This record gives sequence, structure tokens and C-alpha cells, in this order.
Amino acid sequence: MEMKQYIEENRGRFLEELFSLLRIPSISSEPAHKDDMVRCAERWKELLLEAGADRAAVYPTTGHPVVFAEKKYDPKAPTVLVYGHYDVMPVDPLDLWDSNPFEPVIRDGAIYARGANDDKGQTFMHLKVFEYLVREGLLRHNIKFILEGEEEMGSAALVKWLPAHRKLLACDIILVSDTTMMDRRIPSINCGMRGICYMEVKVTGPKKDLHSGHYGGGVYNPINTLCKMIDSLIDADGHITVGGFYDDVIELSRKDRKMLARAPFDKKAFMEEIGVADLTGEKGYTTKERVSIRPCLDVNGIWGGYIGDGSKTVIPSEAHAKISMRLVPNQDSHTIAKLFAKHFRKIAPKGVKVEVEERHGGEGFLIPISSRAYKAASRAMGEVYGIEPVPSRGGGSIAVLAQMQRHLNADPLLMGFGLERDAIHSPNESYLLDQWEKGMESIALFYKYY
Amino acid sequence: MEMKQYIEENRGRFLEELFSLLRIPSISSEPAHKDDMVRCAERWKELLLEAGADRAAVYPTTGHPVVFAEKKYDPKAPTVLVYGHYDVMPVDPLDLWDSNPFEPVIRDGAIYARGANDDKGQTFMHLKVFEYLVREGLLRHNIKFILEGEEEMGSAALVKWLPAHRKLLACDIILVSDTTMMDRRIPSINCGMRGICYMEVKVTGPKKDLHSGHYGGGVYNPINTLCKMIDSLIDADGHITVGGFYDDVIELSRKDRKMLARAPFDKKAFMEEIGVADLTGEKGYTTKERVSIRPCLDVNGIWGGYIGDGSKTVIPSEAHAKISMRLVPNQDSHTIAKLFAKHFRKIAPKGVKVEVEERHGGEGFLIPISSRAYKAASRAMGEVYGIEPVPSRGGGSIAVLAQMQRHLNADPLLMGFGLERDAIHSPNESYLLDQWEKGMESIALFYKYY
Repeated sequence: MEMKQYIEENRGRFLEELFSLLRIPSISSEPAHKDDMVRCAERWKELLLEAGADRAAVYPTTGHPVVFAEKKYDPKAPTVLVYGHYDVMPVDPLDLWDSNPFEPVIRDGAIYARGANDDKGQTFMHLKVFEYLVREGLLRHNIKFILEGEEEMGSAALVKWLPAHRKLLACDIILVSDTTMMDRRIPSINCGMRGICYMEVKVTGPKKDLHSGHYGGGVYNPINTLCKMIDSLIDADGHITVGGFYDDVIELSRKDRKMLARAPFDKKAFMEEIGVADLTGEKGYTTKERVSIRPCLDVNGIWGGYIGDGSKTVIPSEAHAKISMRLVPNQDSHTIAKLFAKHFRKIAPKGVKVEVEERHGGEGFLIPISSRAYKAASRAMGEVYGIEPVPSRGGGSIAVLAQMQRHLNADPLLMGFGLERDAIHSPNESYLLDQWEKGMESIALFYKYY
Repeated sequence: MEMKQYIEENRGRFLEELFSLLRIPSISSEPAHKDDMVRCAERWKELLLEAGADRAAVYPTTGHPVVFAEKKYDPKAPTVLVYGHYDVMPVDPLDLWDSNPFEPVIRDGAIYARGANDDKGQTFMHLKVFEYLVREGLLRHNIKFILEGEEEMGSAALVKWLPAHRKLLACDIILVSDTTMMDRRIPSINCGMRGICYMEVKVTGPKKDLHSGHYGGGVYNPINTLCKMIDSLIDADGHITVGGFYDDVIELSRKDRKMLARAPFDKKAFMEEIGVADLTGEKGYTTKERVSIRPCLDVNGIWGGYIGDGSKTVIPSEAHAKISMRLVPNQDSHTIAKLFAKHFRKIAPKGVKVEVEERHGGEGFLIPISSRAYKAASRAMGEVYGIEPVPSRGGGSIAVLAQMQRHLNADPLLMGFGLERDAIHSPNESYLLDQWEKGMESIALFYKYY
């Protein structure tokens, strides 16, 4: 039986099982959900065993647990390690959701829930292809699963757990569905991702909150000062001003840039989708390049002073910001963190104190498109979508993959079936059923050609 | 009997009566304290009657009530209207208080409680001088009291109530103790205060929160953009860049600046008190001038994106700030609000939308130091402190006084006895007993010389 037919015959059960995962609010960054994390890990273990794993286990770590499962086929056959994560992002602002984020519903051909795509929905495709291969007697590989619970927080626990479990995870390829395709009609395969360096800064002025009438005009206001410092981090050409920031950036060749430019990009549609009238970014690069092959700096959060209703005339003692930089392969996140901290301290005026902390980091990586695994994935997706996939570069970061690549000496392969419309970290996250099913068909074919 | 002796003989009762006011948590901005506001107004009415008022009444308004009282002496004698407020600021963060803010205690020669100074403690001095004048047969003026319950919120209710009660409040001078002296050894009289224009802004970029990995580097991040816009509001010389902002600012004469410069100012002590290593401000002016006779702009609050624990890689849809400008006399707060809104919209890049709202405003004012009332106050304080008071300019705003000046056609006179050490809007607000008593002596002498 083809995968397409297998889906047809099992669609109801598939959805029920996926929904059972989506109903668990496994928000890794919120301590209140600690038990939900364990519940979610246990549910994955159960489903992996039901699908046909020889064994499955929930392993404790220094943080949220990881789930491991495997099915052995033949020591001589290649081993595929499926990586995924069962944790999800927070859901606030809750009032912008059209339905409960943890009560999945199907509307207009898509599943709506937190995690519908990222990454429960996408990882679930691998679970069901695995089940199909086992039950239909089509298994020709050793298959392992490693699912972590901290991807949305930087994967610290898995990174620590990894070195002691190299043997357990040993594999030929790390197969991941946690990314997007560029368009629902144009399949693409990520052949590189950005790294990240996430910092938190605190600017302290006066030792206590001051009355803005008595002191306004004469002292360094920490908020105004923080704004000035942040503004200075990017110059008029869109370059990051942190000293040494670009030292390890590898410039892409004209040929590589041309290849990436083959991927269609409709600027007008892009702007309409996110609802903006203009774009910005680094001089000399296209928007597509700016969000994928070039590093960048964004403030992800800022707070200080009085933020309630009404007005309070205060010069606050402190102002805070969370600032992250997306890095390109070959930039080291800890090096960048050090350069940033040094720079940020340097640009602070004498009238304030600054504290700079590295919150998390991860390296970018590249995947050779000449590899057997990439070719198999390309053939599989080409067959399902009727068009050869475009190699693309992802702008996001899956920090742990660079670590796994290094420790397991195996390349990741990113077969992602999300779409930008899925709003993965936003209210009303969704995943198109059509992509979910085409994803399963593609993955099944990948095993056929790999 | 001199006031000094009258205090000596009645100190215990004075403190008991003041404490009865301080025990009422009359926080005007917190709806939960609505009944406490009424209780506090009623208690003032009671005390005013006991002190010798012919009549006293609590008047309803559109907000918290006002207390009015009067004692007629002679239609031909001057009428003094004492203005004060019985509302207090919120008390959070409560854990920074060394004792219950609403259970007054005396420690190290000072009364500690919310409102100990601002403005129950200061207004109470007028109540007791009034009692002294009546009971000792020294009354030579008509005396009125108007106490409001919304000063800490902008005085909206009193401003609305005012026009219909001009006759009731008719007076020759508005006497106020709601400000500070520059030093406990150097008496000063405020001869002008700043106005205020308080705005709230919102910068909207993409219509929904975006994943910073997928979009970072290519779109206008509303936080970065807001920071850039805020940074541009003040130039390198400390000038506000809003077009037309300085049009109505009256430059002080060299002579006036010299007079104000006579007031001692210890920059090192000032910096130590607030715990900063450097000061900033408008080029060409001293710190004292920057915080009093010059306008300024401060961000009082900023928020946007993810501000919880940990990290979230989001480019938020919105960023917000509360921005206020202190104005000098002759600048109109509504005009400034319009100029600010126009400027802020103009400097926004095309990739974001901005909303600008005027939250509240009030005008600054000047008090002629050549007036009979100023001279009487100066003589009185000079006698009590043994040194001629310095005319000073206050940096804060008592928005309602400009309105009263206009509607009642009478100048305010600001005899304030607070000190910076009193921490009036902060935890552990206090009022030195020595200042409290010298204040009463000064006010009693004011009546003698006015």
C-alpha cells in the first residue's frame, strides 16, 4: 500500500493521536508546566511503542526529559535518527487566539493549535511514516527517534545530555522536520540555517525611581539611554556596529547567491502577508538574503518604568531589553556574546551602569547538497509536489543541530513542510492538512530512495 | 503666645490628629480606596471645624470629593485660600517599606508614613496655624481651605469643579505647602513651576508577532524602530528636536539666572544621593537650571515584545512608550501635544504605523517675587531659619495651580517645607518633625507680615 492510501485509511486515528499530543500544554519556558512536559514525553513514548518501536524510554536530563526510541532492522543498513521537539512556545497574548490553543480544531483545511506545526505536527509525520514502514513490512533502515523538550528555550539540557549518549544516538543522518517550505507549490529543502546569540541587558541609572519633575532634564534616564544604545547597534546601512561582529562571516560566492536567488520571492506578497508598507535591512542584499544568509540583530523584548494604565511621572531606576542576533555558519555564538557584551559596556555613558548576560546561543550550519541523503529527499519531494525542490537557506536556528552534527558526526537533513502562513510562534498557529499529508508521503518516499 | 510655644503645649495632640489622617489609605488612583477617600475628606472637615472654621463641607465632584472650609474675619481684610490635597500615591513596592505605610511612626526625628509629607503633613501645618490664630485671637485675615483628592492623578475633578465655584473660592492669594526647600539649612520659596505634557505612543510593525529567525534582518522591528525614534527626540546637545518645541519658551535674563544661581547646589552630593556617576542635560545650562527653568523630555515607561523569564525569539507586532515633557511657563501643553504628535508621525519610517495620544497636560506658572505675599513669606521664613530664603524654580508640576491662578485671578504662593530626603513618592516617605514645626512657625509669621 502506498503511504497516500495508508493515510486515507487511518486519517481519523492519526488526527486523534496528534490531538492527544496537542492537548498537552507543554510550554517549556513556563515552570508551571513542568508536569505537562513529563506527561507529553510519556505520551510520545506510548505512541512510539504503539507505532512499532522495539523500545522507547523517557530519559531524565538536567532540564525537561528527552524521549528516545528505536527499531533495529539490520546492522548493515543505514541508521536514520529522527530529531524533533515536543515543547511549544508560550501562547500569550491569549486574546488574539480564535480558539483555545490547547484544544485543537480543524478550520479551512488546517489544524489550529499551539504546536500544530512546531513541532508536534511535523514530528508526528515521522511517527506515522515509521508505523507505516513497520506495519507494511517496508522497513529497510534502522530508525531512531530523539525528541527533546527544550528546543524553544535553546536546547541546553539535550546539549548537556548528548556527549554521554553518542553511542545511543549513533546514526548516518539526522532527519528533521522543523522548518518551512518557501511556498506550498514550490518545495524547498533547507541546506543551511542561522545560529543565534540571545542576550539580556539591564541599564541602571539612579539607585531609586525618581520624580520626573524634580530630576527630569538633569539625569540619565535609563530608558532614554537604553533606546540610544540600542539605536546605535545598527548603522544607517543596516550593519551591526558591534566591533568584530563580521570577522568570521563567510561571504557567499556570486554563484551561491545566484543559486539561492532562483527561489521565487514576491516582495509585494511578502509585505502583504505580514501587513507592512515597507521593508528594511542590510544594504547590498535582497530581502531573501537578509533573512537567511546574513546575520542580523533584533530586540525581542523591552521594558522599564511605568507600564500600567494612566500615567506616572517617573524616571525609573532600571530599563531592560532582550536582544538577539541571528548568526551565519562559521560565526561562534559565545564569541559573539563576548563581543556584544564588551561593545555594550563600552557604549554606555558614565551616568549608567549596565549588566549584560548571555541567555542562550547556538551555531549555524550548512548541509552539503551533494550528499546521498539530500538527493533522496529531493527526489522524494519532487515526486510528491511534481517539481524539483529548491535548495534554500533558513533564517531560523535549531541550535542543537550544530551540536548533534559535531557529536554524532552525521549531517542533519531538513525536510520541513511548514509554511509562513502557519504563524508558528504567534496566536492561531496552524498546519495545513494538505502539507501534513504531502509531508508524510515525501518522508515515506525518502526512505524508499535513501 | 508665639506659635513655637503653642506647638510645645499641643505637640502630642497635633501628632495624634495628623496620625488619624495618615492612617486612612487615601490612594486616589486605586478604585479599591474609594470609600477611604470619602473617610479622609470627612476627617479633614471635622478637624477644620474643630480648629475654628465657621463652616466646612465635603463637596461631591465628578471624581473624589473636595473639602472646603472658611473663617470670615472682615470683608475688607485680605483673603488667603489654602490649597492642599488629601490623596496620596500608591505604596508599591510594599516590601521596601520599613514599617506599614498607613501606620505612622516616629523614627530619628521624622514621621514615617505615606502622606507624612505629601501632602497631609504639609497641609496639616496650615490647619494648626489656623487654629492658633483663631484661639489666640490673632486672626487678621479671611481664611479659606480647599483640599482636593486627585492631585496625584492630575486634578481633573477639581479643574472641572472650579469654574462654577469661583465665588466660593475667591481670594487674594493661594497659599500652598506641597513643595520642597533646597536644603534644611537654606530656606527657599518656589517662584515658578514647570508644566507637563504626557503622551503615549504605539508603534506597530507587522500585523502579527513574527519569528525572528524567519524575518529577522528584513523587516522593521517595532522595538528597534521605537528606540530609534525616541533616540532622535533629543539631539547631541540635549535639545528636544520636536519642531516648534521652543517657540514659546521665554529665555531667562542673565540677571534672573544669576539670582537663581545663588541657591547652593552641590553636584557631588546630588549625584551621591541618587547614586549616579555622571549627569547629563541641555548644553549651556547648569543642572539646577536643567531641572527647573528648562523644558525636558523623559520616557516614563516602555514595553514591547517578550518580557517574561527566559527568551522568546519574536519580532513583536507592537511597541509602546509613555513619554512626558516638562514645560516652562508660557508653553501651552495642548500646543506641545500637537507638535509632538505631528513630529512623531513625521519621523516614523514607512514600514511602521504610529499612534500618538495625549494623556494629560498642565501649564507651568510664575509667581512675581515683587509681590506683597512673596515678601511676607520671605520675611517669615528668614526669621525662622535665620537666613533670607532663596527664590527658586521648581521642576515639578502642580497642574491645578495654573488653572486656579487663571480662574480666581490670584497668584499661588508656594511655601514648601519638604526636603528631597523625604522620598515623597517612594517607599519610606517621611517628614522631619523639625521642618514640620519650623513650617508652622513660618506660616504663622506669614500671616503676621501679610
